Amino acid sequence: MPNSTTPSSSQALEAVLARVDAGLDASLERLYALLRIRSISTDPAYAPECQRAADWLVGELSGLGFAAQARPTPGHPVVVAHGPDQAGPHVLFYAHYDVQPVDPLELWHSDPFEPQLRTDANGRQIIVARGASDDKGQMLTFIEACRAFKAATGGLPLKISLMLEGEEESGGVNLPPFMQANRDELAQADIALVCDTDMWDRQTPSITTMLRGLVADEIEITAAARDLHSGMFGNAARNPNQVLAEIIASLRAPDGSVTLPGFYDDVAELSPELKAQWQGLGFDEKQFLADAGLSLPAGEQGRSVLEMLWSRPTCEINGMIGGYTGEGFKTVIPAKASAKISFRLVSGMDPDKIRAAFRKHVEALVPSDCSVRFIPHGGSPAITVPADGDYLRKALSGLSAEWGKPAVITGSGGSIPVAGDFKRILGLDTLLIGFAHVDDQIHSPNEKYDLDSFHRGIRSWVHVLASLAE
Amino acid sequence: MPNSTTPSSSQALEAVLARVDAGLDASLERLYALLRIRSISTDPAYAPECQRAADWLVGELSGLGFAAQARPTPGHPVVVAHGPDQAGPHVLFYAHYDVQPVDPLELWHSDPFEPQLRTDANGRQIIVARGASDDKGQMLTFIEACRAFKAATGGLPLKISLMLEGEEESGGVNLPPFMQANRDELAQADIALVCDTDMWDRQTPSITTMLRGLVADEIEITAAARDLHSGMFGNAARNPNQVLAEIIASLRAPDGSVTLPGFYDDVAELSPELKAQWQGLGFDEKQFLADAGLSLPAGEQGRSVLEMLWSRPTCEINGMIGGYTGEGFKTVIPAKASAKISFRLVSGMDPDKIRAAFRKHVEALVPSDCSVRFIPHGGSPAITVPADGDYLRKALSGLSAEWGKPAVITGSGGSIPVAGDFKRILGLDTLLIGFAHVDDQIHSPNEKYDLDSFHRGIRSWVHVLASLAE
Repeated sequence: MPNSTTPSSSQALEAVLARVDAGLDASLERLYALLRIRSISTDPAYAPECQRAADWLVGELSGLGFAAQARPTPGHPVVVAHGPDQAGPHVLFYAHYDVQPVDPLELWHSDPFEPQLRTDANGRQIIVARGASDDKGQMLTFIEACRAFKAATGGLPLKISLMLEGEEESGGVNLPPFMQANRDELAQADIALVCDTDMWDRQTPSITTMLRGLVADEIEITAAARDLHSGMFGNAARNPNQVLAEIIASLRAPDGSVTLPGFYDDVAELSPELKAQWQGLGFDEKQFLADAGLSLPAGEQGRSVLEMLWSRPTCEINGMIGGYTGEGFKTVIPAKASAKISFRLVSGMDPDKIRAAFRKHVEALVPSDCSVRFIPHGGSPAITVPADGDYLRKALSGLSAEWGKPAVITGSGGSIPVAGDFKRILGLDTLLIGFAHVDDQIHSPNEKYDLDSFHRGIRSWVHVLASLAE
Repeated sequence: MPNSTTPSSSQALEAVLARVDAGLDASLERLYALLRIRSISTDPAYAPECQRAADWLVGELSGLGFAAQARPTPGHPVVVAHGPDQAGPHVLFYAHYDVQPVDPLELWHSDPFEPQLRTDANGRQIIVARGASDDKGQMLTFIEACRAFKAATGGLPLKISLMLEGEEESGGVNLPPFMQANRDELAQADIALVCDTDMWDRQTPSITTMLRGLVADEIEITAAARDLHSGMFGNAARNPNQVLAEIIASLRAPDGSVTLPGFYDDVAELSPELKAQWQGLGFDEKQFLADAGLSLPAGEQGRSVLEMLWSRPTCEINGMIGGYTGEGFKTVIPAKASAKISFRLVSGMDPDKIRAAFRKHVEALVPSDCSVRFIPHGGSPAITVPADGDYLRKALSGLSAEWGKPAVITGSGGSIPVAGDFKRILGLDTLLIGFAHVDDQIHSPNEKYDLDSFHRGIRSWVHVLASLAE
């Protein structure tokens, strides 16, 4: 690559940023072109549109000097692109080009696939379209940053690969095998970058370094061989609803902790540094709960809500059913009752060990003339990016440079499976950096992305890539 | 009524019984005629058939000298008939002329409305048709007994009224108001007779004197204002499934007793006589539970299964639901969870008091930022016929005379609402006397009534009526 330049000087960096600013209208036009493609992955009728989105990305990336291909899978294609070889670290960027369905269409104020630039009630400029935020807008912040480097310096500041999938909104079952099949190629990267998360608030960029894992299990208790009449059998016959309720009730102690033996054995306390940093976030527990219509934190007493959500495991009853649940009343003692139960795990916890402890606990509570069947629904460990890592430090510094205040490190109570796959299949840590906001209405009508998210998101990636290249 | 005769002599009684035996074929033909009428009460298409059945009964009863009418209700008619005034007690006989639907029709071996007399695998003669047992066959045992008295003696042995309803299989909401509206007329009786129950076994007649009452309540727990994501909120947000399970689990102690404060306060111990009589029934607890696929009695430890079913109250979870219960898994913390819960009551327990104790107990367990809504689903007290009553003693003696062994007194874990209505509205005790068997397949395809149930049922009523008239 003859003329590649690293923006090691602040002058070069300023030139790239100036290029971002000057090219914003053109960047927006490209985003609109992508948003017009109806790449709804879950609906087979839109498969050609998913292919079109992948082809569009290949075209754009090829134009920027990437070796780009839309590679087939049993589902929608995965776009893989490699930039020219460079000294320094090699980053692998992930985003997804597919979008959620648009129902209910009547609640949209404009065509979901005809992007609009509007001013919202707060005076902010917003881009309204399906996928504006999740994830086409976020994806293009990175690609437009690459474009600005190319235009201002003739090349990229470091070795960049991209993997852009088309099934994130529809289960994503084909991505892990794809990563496995292309392991040697993809694992050459040093760090993965994912742009699919929120900022902490409108002024504060963040990197999510802790994602909880998940163990999901379904249990079905069988008592009698058939449904029984509660008059004819009530008291004598075991009621599986009662058995199931007793099992569920036994999973939480009155202090909010989970009672499974050994559940907290591998759970580390927060480092004093991280604890102090989270306290400094100014998270309003009362407001967070009030927004959901609640006022009492339900987890372990004595811990902050952010700890409960980000650094403590939980057990949740996601569903339960048994007996007659229709209108009116039916005096039945059902034969079966069942529940869907999940555990969110934190770093250090072994999904298999937790599942085994859960099943052992349940089995001990099932009366000897009843039986229990377990149906597994997947499991994945928690993900933690080492807080003292070099890439993390550099990325934080890049974000802080753009936003003029320190970027924060956050956790997330949810799970982002691709981060687990990067670690498990490719051995890569992931930096989750995004510019979305909680009010973006992703998956809902009138999805939007702040123009500021898009513009300063592009600028942020310029800073982060420059910082990583140093 | 000029020539009415009471069969005070055994000679007269023998003449009536001989008449029953001689007239059995004609009695069967009349039963067949009634069984051919498709009086399915729940299906409006069969309303004319219900009217036909009522009219048919009015015709038969008028022919026997009753003043009989099919009286309209907002639903199907109630047949009310009064025999001539007589000295001695006045009995009010209840049965129902409506039947269950016949689905699934393909499982019937013959037309449900074309009665067949067959020999079953045990060599017993059986009458197969919808309603053969429940309740047309049982109803005609009484009417044919009246016919035999009329034929052999010229009259009835005591004052007899009948109330035959047509909505027992479809909710029966019109009967209590009908009884209320005709209270002065119907309450002139001294005792109610109901023919809608089983014998204890094929050799042993029984009178059911204890029916459990019922309090049914639905509770709905609301936690958050909307469904939440269990990753984003799990641990911090209250899970109403967990709250509901803890409430349900709290209702039973490990020893199988119900924990509501005061629940057993008004529950009397069985009299030593009744306890001894029940022990003498030779009830096979193991087999009873094994038939349902169970082996451990679930109620209060140290009590017999018959006690658990007949003389001890219970709390049953008839239905519960919350969160995602479809295929697969959804990581939701639902906003609401609900359960349908019923209490079977025994004599002395006040339904209102039990409902209040339940609701107070639940309210104390609901976290202060959650709410609970209660939806009542009816309540009725238990029914007990005094074990030392004169009518009961005479009826037992009549049954024993026919079957050649002592009739037994049994309880029932279920509730027969009309018995409660007789007590509540008319102030009458009820003697529940029936000749059906557990294998009659009522409500199912190939319903049958043993010819022996029909024949000796008629003879039994002759004995019982004669005994009551003494």
